[in-house]
Amino acid sequence: MKRLLVQFDTDPHPAVFDRVVAIDAGCDHLFSYGGITTENVVSLCHGAMFTRGLQDLKSTAIFIGGSDAEAGVELLKRIQETFFGPMRVSVMVDSNGCNTTAAAAVQCAARHLPLGGAESVVLGGTGPVGFRAAQLLAVEGATVRLASRYIERAEAACARLRQLVDGAKVLPAETSDEGLAATLDGAQVIIAAGAAGVQFLTGDEWRSVESLKVLIDLNAVPPAGLQGVEPGDKATERDGIVCYGALGVGGLKMKIHKAAIEQLFSANDRVLDTVAIHRLASELA
Amino acid sequence: MKRLLVQFDTDPHPAVFDRVVAIDAGCDHLFSYGGITTENVVSLCHGAMFTRGLQDLKSTAIFIGGSDAEAGVELLKRIQETFFGPMRVSVMVDSNGCNTTAAAAVQCAARHLPLGGAESVVLGGTGPVGFRAAQLLAVEGATVRLASRYIERAEAACARLRQLVDGAKVLPAETSDEGLAATLDGAQVIIAAGAAGVQFLTGDEWRSVESLKVLIDLNAVPPAGLQGVEPGDKATERDGIVCYGALGVGGLKMKIHKAAIEQLFSANDRVLDTVAIHRLASELA
Amino acid sequence: MKRLLVQFDTDPHPAVFDRVVAIDAGCDHLFSYGGITTENVVSLCHGAMFTRGLQDLKSTAIFIGGSDAEAGVELLKRIQETFFGPMRVSVMVDSNGCNTTAAAAVQCAARHLPLGGAESVVLGGTGPVGFRAAQLLAVEGATVRLASRYIERAEAACARLRQLVDGAKVLPAETSDEGLAATLDGAQVIIAAGAAGVQFLTGDEWRSVESLKVLIDLNAVPPAGLQGVEPGDKATERDGIVCYGALGVGGLKMKIHKAAIEQLFSANDRVLDTVAIHRLASELA
Repeated sequence: MKRLLVQFDTDPHPAVFDRVVAIDAGCDHLFSYGGITTENVVSLCHGAMFTRGLQDLKSTAIFIGGSDAEAGVELLKRIQETFFGPMRVSVMVDSNGCNTTAAAAVQCAARHLPLGGAESVVLGGTGPVGFRAAQLLAVEGATVRLASRYIERAEAACARLRQLVDGAKVLPAETSDEGLAATLDGAQVIIAAGAAGVQFLTGDEWRSVESLKVLIDLNAVPPAGLQGVEPGDKATERDGIVCYGALGVGGLKMKIHKAAIEQLFSANDRVLDTVAIHRLASELA
Repeated sequence: MKRLLVQFDTDPHPAVFDRVVAIDAGCDHLFSYGGITTENVVSLCHGAMFTRGLQDLKSTAIFIGGSDAEAGVELLKRIQETFFGPMRVSVMVDSNGCNTTAAAAVQCAARHLPLGGAESVVLGGTGPVGFRAAQLLAVEGATVRLASRYIERAEAACARLRQLVDGAKVLPAETSDEGLAATLDGAQVIIAAGAAGVQFLTGDEWRSVESLKVLIDLNAVPPAGLQGVEPGDKATERDGIVCYGALGVGGLKMKIHKAAIEQLFSANDRVLDTVAIHRLASELA
Repeated sequence: MKRLLVQFDTDPHPAVFDRVVAIDAGCDHLFSYGGITTENVVSLCHGAMFTRGLQDLKSTAIFIGGSDAEAGVELLKRIQETFFGPMRVSVMVDSNGCNTTAAAAVQCAARHLPLGGAESVVLGGTGPVGFRAAQLLAVEGATVRLASRYIERAEAACARLRQLVDGAKVLPAETSDEGLAATLDGAQVIIAAGAAGVQFLTGDEWRSVESLKVLIDLNAVPPAGLQGVEPGDKATERDGIVCYGALGVGGLKMKIHKAAIEQLFSANDRVLDTVAIHRLASELA
């Protein structure tokens, strides 16, 4: 059976990026859709469920993408409600690459210290990638300070995280000038996942954190989110700190993305969400 | 030459169902379009006609789909008007699967009694599948009672059928409580092709038809259109009556659909409409 | 690596024509987009640039099509601005087939006389194909009379041509009854590239041009743009003049189109615009 991937994108045009990766991961045909909503997805989903026999259903799968991570989560939910009994196909969600990027960043950190009990800070923790990096750090047992410019948003994100992760040790934190020192105090891992153009820390600021071991900047576009960290940094030591830039994390992110696509076709009931992609990333390491 | 299928769908998003079947029927590439109308189809159609040499034109074909069967018929007409001389490609129309489903249902009935002269009833005969089932029964020489909740609609459908099928023996019939007994009296074949959620007959009602031999319910979603017939029924005997449910007919429908796609590529001038698909189904049996 | 072609079409539906040619030229997968603008192209372009490693980037390429040639030129410009350093993929622009058609027409003329110093006339020279034919004749050193029904438009087109081609010998000309004789006087090559339904010259008119050697009519739909020239003419002699019709030029046009698609995948930095496609066509001859 040909491997068919149905790409549901919440943006008007289905992402070229996800299409290239899907082909390079071995899909035979892509059925790409833009403008997908929880309303119009149902009949398309039926088309994926009701065409092939049960023993062949594992050769059809669904990929959810688009720039809106929340819309992607809603779509996954609606698709899972549409499935019933054995009538289902595997599904992966990676809106804007948020799951594979967060999994890759956390995996990079895990190479250099045990995450269980580690002190971690996620700057830009309310964005799609930052929130998922915080979630995965919490899953691994790290203490997470989830930082935002607005403490109310950080608090709301922490409340959501506690619902997602049993026993999550997460604390809201501030990136304002006044709150920054407290946010960084004692941190061993810092992951910056802000919007392009936002510099979270100067070089002096992160060098002053004595406990710091790993510094990860997921912003690829200058200026750097963490001053002095280069996009190409890949376990590069800077002043005794292990640094990763966006491109340094990107190779692993791509490897995880491809492995996840391949795993979709191993059975007809895989659900590759944030945590499942993280588990897969751990196995790859 | 690669086998190219151009999918023209009258819905905004081209159906996943038709895409999966096309690939499984051996198409190398699908060019899938949603939102196709009699206006925008012409230049796309030119693109299919004017790219390959005459000897290679049979490796390009058109599939018309979408949820609106009438729009599909209009599209077929416009596409045929666009062709001229040898500049044409083969075309299949199967909006909402109505042609392959009707052909499969009639083929199932034909396994159990000769249709020429048979007394048949089509419940939901004004819908896209029911109307085509009635058409094909008439083509085979059966007497058809085409039943609807509204006798006026049944009459209009019968008038259209008489234009489509020379010498068609079709009569309008009612599914109302008062008219039902007359509608069913003497029936040997009953096909139910209503909308999801419509129960046409109770078990007592169909069991009381002494002449009945074959009972086909094309509704896959509970409640059944014919009480007691299960979706998986496939020549299943119930109280001496041969029963078929939607899934029981579905296997043959899929086989017909794939065979039709394959036949598109045997020449550049095939036109697979309701009757042509029925002829193909008869050859498969 | 699979050869991926990203088709950016400025029309709502991506052209079937360009898709068929792309597959026949050896592309493994097409990612086809309609409704592409200079605004929405950027993130799709990033998806093509940032997915594969540098050594594999040559297996991804972009094709720009659609009925609006000016929109295609703008799209090419925006895409080239999006690339940086080695992060780029090859791009071809052939909106409405204008570049491959113009290159094929000029190549046909070049078979029968040296174009350097030749006297040429392009009727319908302000349209997308005519303008590019005039451009390529000028590139080859021909004197070009660029004719339009409106002399102001012809003058504007000549001004643009002089900016595009260093030392272009181009003159505006009229197709009105009064101006026609002067337009045609001394012409060795006449290319007609008007809209369907426009007859530029009667048979008597072109036969009266004593210097004439080659006559090319790019209109495929009757009536002919040049009376007496048949669509299938391919170096057909008529009254001592070598004639080409749209279909006669079309074979070479298709050959150029396919060769251009193939060349896209020879490196990751090809830019196949009007002149580059013309150069490629010269090499094919």
